Amino acid sequence: MARWEPNAAERLARAALDLFSEQGYDDTTVMDIAQRAGLAKSSFFRHFSDKREVLFGGAAMDGLLTEAIATAPPSFTALEAVGRALDAAGREVFTSARRETVLRRRAVIAANPELQEREALKSLSLTASMTKALERRGVPGLTARVAAELGALASAVAIEHWSQTANRSEFGVLARQALHDVQDSMESCSVRAPTPPSART
Amino acid sequence: MARWEPNAAERLARAALDLFSEQGYDDTTVMDIAQRAGLAKSSFFRHFSDKREVLFGGAAMDGLLTEAIATAPPSFTALEAVGRALDAAGREVFTSARRETVLRRRAVIAANPELQEREALKSLSLTASMTKALERRGVPGLTARVAAELGALASAVAIEHWSQTANRSEFGVLARQALHDVQDSMESCSVRAPTPPSART
Repeated sequence: MARWEPNAAERLARAALDLFSEQGYDDTTVMDIAQRAGLAKSSFFRHFSDKREVLFGGAAMDGLLTEAIATAPPSFTALEAVGRALDAAGREVFTSARRETVLRRRAVIAANPELQEREALKSLSLTASMTKALERRGVPGLTARVAAELGALASAVAIEHWSQTANRSEFGVLARQALHDVQDSMESCSVRAPTPPSART
Repeated sequence: MARWEPNAAERLARAALDLFSEQGYDDTTVMDIAQRAGLAKSSFFRHFSDKREVLFGGAAMDGLLTEAIATAPPSFTALEAVGRALDAAGREVFTSARRETVLRRRAVIAANPELQEREALKSLSLTASMTKALERRGVPGLTARVAAELGALASAVAIEHWSQTANRSEFGVLARQALHDVQDSMESCSVRAPTPPSART
């Protein structure tokens, strides 16, 4: 099918994002999206299960993260392997060329509770995939879950920073910094602060 | 309004759960739920914004967790305060009297992708509320997020254990154990394992 519909999924995703930004998510139909992309409605449903799904691009991100974790050097700790996954996201998804698209997509999602729900479920599913990828490296179950959750948090923090227009650092740099900060925070959240000198006497 | 509709929200929630279990979520209408509860359809919408919402009981859990964090002793670390929130969930929500209801609710949600999405968003929102409650205690932003995420993970692990019919421990005990295990895992996921003796030579 790709032969007569080159980049159909990508064209549909771009058309959808344009229409959602222009006229709102609720007022855009699948037919509108297909027409804008110059494709038939049936093409849409060959690529996406419903209107929401066009913003969530199938399993690309999932494969990217799990592959990066799988191919990290065997000596890497769970969090170091997760760091490789964030590097891959920076190389392939959160690039300067895709920056504007990513920001528009985030704005469309933020404006619509239905889309926020889909996004929330997708994000749980990415964390679950990272957990499984870590387990396949021999990381024990709970450690894998903790490392995947901390990686997801670092990624969320890095996306927030990367989205700020004032910030022009590369995603990979911001993600590494966020992972580092998350590790520091993780140590401090379970350790009691020393009693201040004034309270000691 | 409560005067002539005592416990309306609770009656509606119980009726909904019964109907969803008996005939499925998709085949149950808001009218069915109201009738089973002996109330008018308009009563339903006074308490819940839509059919899904009836399973998510408003802001009760949110208030419970944030209150427990707010009232934890000032000397408590972020994770210790989160431990108090889990204790409160065990006392008020995951009780042996509510066990069957909780398990049926989980089964209904697991069978329906729409409900899973709402659940995913609710769970993000609970984590965000715990983060804010920790920040109000003076915990720095990222540390608060990390502690709230680890608390959410410990809670998820504890619910999994508590849901197993073979397991008759109280939720509070399981949650404390899970929080302890999560802390151990958190330490091991960032520390490189010692090189095994065979690889050293």
